Parts: sequence; structure tokens; C-alpha cells
Amino acid sequence: MAATPIYPAAFSLRPTTRSLISRSSPSPANPQIASSFSKYARSSAKSESGFRTRAVLSKFPTYPIGANSAAGPIPAAELLQVVELAAKTGAEVVMDAVNKPRNISYKGVTDLVTDTDKMSESAILDVVRKNFKNHLILGEEGGLIGDTSSDYLWCIDPLDGTTNFAHCYPSFGVSVGVLLRGRPVAAAVVEFVGGPMCWNTRTFTATSGGGAFCNGQKVHVSQTDQVERSLLVTGFGYEHDDAWTTNMDLFKHFTDISRGVRRLGAAAVDMSHVALGIVEAYWEYRLKPWDMAAGVLIVEEAGGTVTCMDGGKFSVFDRSVLVSNGIVHEKLLERIGAATADLKTKGVDFSPWFKPESYLTDT
Amino acid sequence: MAATPIYPAAFSLRPTTRSLISRSSPSPANPQIASSFSKYARSSAKSESGFRTRAVLSKFPTYPIGANSAAGPIPAAELLQVVELAAKTGAEVVMDAVNKPRNISYKGVTDLVTDTDKMSESAILDVVRKNFKNHLILGEEGGLIGDTSSDYLWCIDPLDGTTNFAHCYPSFGVSVGVLLRGRPVAAAVVEFVGGPMCWNTRTFTATSGGGAFCNGQKVHVSQTDQVERSLLVTGFGYEHDDAWTTNMDLFKHFTDISRGVRRLGAAAVDMSHVALGIVEAYWEYRLKPWDMAAGVLIVEEAGGTVTCMDGGKFSVFDRSVLVSNGIVHEKLLERIGAATADLKTKGVDFSPWFKPESYLTDT
Repeated sequence: MAATPIYPAAFSLRPTTRSLISRSSPSPANPQIASSFSKYARSSAKSESGFRTRAVLSKFPTYPIGANSAAGPIPAAELLQVVELAAKTGAEVVMDAVNKPRNISYKGVTDLVTDTDKMSESAILDVVRKNFKNHLILGEEGGLIGDTSSDYLWCIDPLDGTTNFAHCYPSFGVSVGVLLRGRPVAAAVVEFVGGPMCWNTRTFTATSGGGAFCNGQKVHVSQTDQVERSLLVTGFGYEHDDAWTTNMDLFKHFTDISRGVRRLGAAAVDMSHVALGIVEAYWEYRLKPWDMAAGVLIVEEAGGTVTCMDGGKFSVFDRSVLVSNGIVHEKLLERIGAATADLKTKGVDFSPWFKPESYLTDT
Repeated sequence: MAATPIYPAAFSLRPTTRSLISRSSPSPANPQIASSFSKYARSSAKSESGFRTRAVLSKFPTYPIGANSAAGPIPAAELLQVVELAAKTGAEVVMDAVNKPRNISYKGVTDLVTDTDKMSESAILDVVRKNFKNHLILGEEGGLIGDTSSDYLWCIDPLDGTTNFAHCYPSFGVSVGVLLRGRPVAAAVVEFVGGPMCWNTRTFTATSGGGAFCNGQKVHVSQTDQVERSLLVTGFGYEHDDAWTTNMDLFKHFTDISRGVRRLGAAAVDMSHVALGIVEAYWEYRLKPWDMAAGVLIVEEAGGTVTCMDGGKFSVFDRSVLVSNGIVHEKLLERIGAATADLKTKGVDFSPWFKPESYLTDT
């Protein structure tokens, strides 16, 4: 049974952002992408977006909600096509808005949300639901929708790094990761780089066991084996609690002993930079599943290591993450792990969060 | 008397970096740029780099070393042409190296220098000395050269953000600022953005009283009037002394109360971002004249404010700098100024440094 990504023609045909909708992942399993929008479909014609389309007038096939095999019923490469299309569709919305005035509202004193976050999420949801109508979806802005009995959970950050976006400060991105029974199996992050006068994007993709790619080229974590020669990056969330204070201490410590700790402000982007090999490690407390689901798979598939900040096994529902090139992981944990253990001793809550109640996981 | 920028044809004709040598500053005073390299010069022919050249077989004219008027004898727009050409010539060297392996050596445990720093500086010096052979030049890598009785002092950072460059991590840049009796009068910063798969540059220029520009478009600082709605940026130098510790406290404080404090790692780039209006303010202790000479002029000409971190009048030989959009300056100083005053009370040295002994200043 073939996957049936739906073609968001209203976005993909815009000339200003046409380049975003093109495959950056290698060797797509199914170049014959079907569309149920007959008015946009063309018989065996290559569309402006680079996908081949064909008319499907009848109801398009759907995959079952559940999955019994470890790999799931949907071939990874086909799943990735929808993941990537979804991320790039969101990115088109963001690119359209990038030089326009922002309409900002607040979740907290400094926690922003813009109309663009909401419009990007809506566009992404449209792609996902038209292709996999019963899959469960967890979006940063819209919360949980879909069938809670689904084995698949889409974790969507429609605009990762909203504060940077609000200031036209690179970087920020769009992050779409899909879990199968709790494990990330396909991921795409579209990173916005450059800023005013020179906006551009770079797309990271990964599938479980299939490697990680940037703009279609395989990427690998760095080979740096010393913390002293490492460039690191971290983030500070909106909740200024004990974990926030501990991370300030970690920032100071590693700024002191490494080549530097960068603070850029977009988790999915920071993790993608570890995969690209331009920084050795990234850590942060209190991230949500939509911040991490794509990034952690991209790092793992680029040869890196992902754990919680106490060194424990990671799930996207955990409240801390440390991703690295793997080589410096244990050395970083000597300090980061101890600091996190101290927080646990103090009673700081590290129990799983944002896990849909009835969603079954293997982890 | 016309300025006579020398044409670094060996760089400018390289197709990979051709685009860097083109005028981004508006309304150049003298489009007829002369070259003393007759073998590269073409009679009234537009070169590949966008400059018009003509053969000058005789010795090219030179300006006097000293300057008695406040504006100096060299028209600002003509001075800027050499400043911008120098910065872009250095940037071509950097762009050539950006995807190649680095040959790194160390000034300290984490203070890097690469062959590219040295090659960029050499290329920049070549442009400056062939145009203004007696001007005094202070380069990060090569120290002081030229005539110490000159009113003009060129402050050159051939690769600002070397650590980022070594890791292919944006941003970094090339910074060239010219002082007339201690005051910045012309500046250019070429910023490298994007990173692997999407390298690009953006060029900031300014002349005293002539405004600030990015890729030829006038730029202005932001209009944000609240620290709580500000995005800030700072840096931490290689010397981990009392000032470094104080800035860790400032980083924590402003991360707590603002929209965030970014830590990107290239002073000239960070200051240019204030001028561009994408961050509201930047501060750092212990910068050198070559880190600041261009950036502070670009901020001032974009409508911003520049002081020392205690709020005092700034010169590029000072050991601290606070640049902002002007509107939030006093509010930032409430904390930053007090912290810096405490350091002074403790006896931390804030006396001028890297000022050439015999160099006369009006400040």
C-alpha cells in the first residue's frame, strides 16, 4: 500500500518560497506522490515543487492506526516524505512572514507566540491529517488531536525559537518528528539562517536506521574528543526554577573550561547543529516533546548520543536532554549528571510530561 | 586629490568569491577607482568585481599623514571605499577557507588562531598600505605597523569570531575601522552567516555623520523601550578574571528579566546586529580596539548609543563597551553600571589599553 502525501498546492505553488518544497532526503521510496486534490493534480507531470503527482479521484488509501511490527506498517522513506513536506509547508508560512511586522501575544511575561506560530501549525496539521487522518498529533500551539489509539504520534513545533523570529534574529526553525510507540522514526527540521538581507533555509532529515541528512547530504557529528576543544550550546527555558539556576552554573562551568557555550535560542536548531558537527553537544532542561522529537533522531542518525541529563535512557517525554557527538558524552556527564542528580535529590520533578494518557509506548 | 584604492586583483578575480567585492555602501564618491597594478588594470573597463579601473603607471597620490581639520583631509566616502575594499578582501580569504580543514594554533588554552586569520590580515594590510602607505595600522595578529605620527589609525580584526570559524559555526566576520585622532570615521564589517550548505555574507558600513548601511540599505536600531521586551547579547573573553565573573552575574540577571541574552561569539557581528535592530543591546568587558572600532561607529550611525559599561564616555581603547538602541541604555546601566563600578572599587584595571604610545587623540 502506498503512502499518499497530500499536496498543499496553495503553498507549494507560491513562487517566493517554491524552493522550500523539494526533496532534500535521499532516494525517496516512492517518487509517485499521489494527491487527492484533483484540481491540482497532473497526470505524471512534475510539479513546480519537485514532486511528481497523479490524479487520485477516489478516496486515498490510509494506513491502519496501529502498528504491530517494530518498523511499523509505513515504510520509513514514505513516512519521511510526509514529514518533510509538512515541515517545509510550515516553513513556507514562516518565510512568508519573515520580513513582515509581527503580531505578538504572550503566554507569559517573556514567552511569546505570534500569528505565524499558529498559521504554520495549521498548515502542518493540514498536511498530516490529510495523509494520516487518524494519527495522533501533539502540536505546541494546538495541543492533542487525533486518535489516541494510534501508534504514531506526530510532535510538531511550528516555529521553534519564536523569540528569535519575533526579533528577526537567526536561528529559528520548524520541527516535525514522528514517534512509533514512543520512539522517533522520522524527522525533519527546517532551519532559518542569515537574517535580514540574506534569509535562507537549511533542511535536516532523518529516519530511524536510515541516517541523517542536511539538504540531501549525509551529515555526521564531530570527532572532537576533548571538552577543552569543544564548542557547546545550551538553552534556558521560561520557567526560572531550580533547574534553571543549575543550568546557569553549568553554563558558567563549561564557558570556563571549553571553547565556549553558545546560546542561540531554538532547541531543534541547536540539536541539528550537533548532527552537522559544528558544535559538540547541547543540553537543556524542561523541553517539550515537540522541541525534541525531530532533533534527537537527527543527532542519533548522525552518529551522536542522546540521554537525559542524568545520563539515563531518554524518551521525548523526559524533562531534560543531553545530545552530543558521543565521544565527549561521558566527560560532560561528570558535571551535568551530578548537577542533575542533585536536583532530583532536592525533589525537582523529572517525571515524564506531555505524554498522551492512552498513548502506548515501547519505552 | 582623489583616493587611490589599490585593486587586489589576485583576490577579486576569483569566481567563487567574486560577489564579495562589490560596493554595498551607497553613492560612492569616486566610481573611478585607480590601480597601480598595470597588468590588471583595464582602461575604463568595469572589472568582474564591480569596480571601474584605469591604468595608473606613475606613483599614485598619497594623502598627508596628519590631519588638522575635524573631518580630516580624506573625504569620508572615499575613505570608506578603501575600508570596505579592505574588509571584503579579507572576507574573500575567509570565504575561500570556509569549507576547508583548519590549521589551528593556540594563543592560550582556548584562544585560537588559524592560518586564515593571518592570511586575511595580510590581504587587508596589502590594501591599506598600498592606498595609505603611512597610516598607522593596528592588526589583531600583526600588531602595530606604519607611521606613529599619523592621525589615522586602522583597527583590523581579520577574523572576528575565530572559534566559530574553526567550528564552521556562524557567525563570524571581518572588521575594519579607521580612527581619525582616536574617533572612528569609517567602518566595514563583513558578517558570515548560514554555515555549511548555505554560507553567505552581509556587509555593514558606516561613515561618521553619513549613516549606517547593510548591503547598501540604510539600517536603524530598534525602537524597543522596555528591557523586558529586549533581546540582548553579550560575550565572555579568554581572561577569566573578576570582570568575567561579573558578566556571568549580568548574563544571569538579564536572562531572568529580558526576552533572552544571546551568546554568539563575535563582537563586531554582535554590534552590527544592534545596528540592524534585531537585538536591543550588546556589552562585553576586555575587548580590544580591533574588536570595536568598526562596530561602535556602525551602531552610532544607526542611531544607537555607545558608552563604557560604567556609563562613561567611550573610546576604542577602553576595556568595556555597552552599545544599545539608546532607548534602553539607561535602564541597562542601572545594573551594568553598578556592577562595573563595583569592579573599579575592587581595583580591577579599566585604564586604556592597546593605544599606540605616540598616537594623538582628541578624546
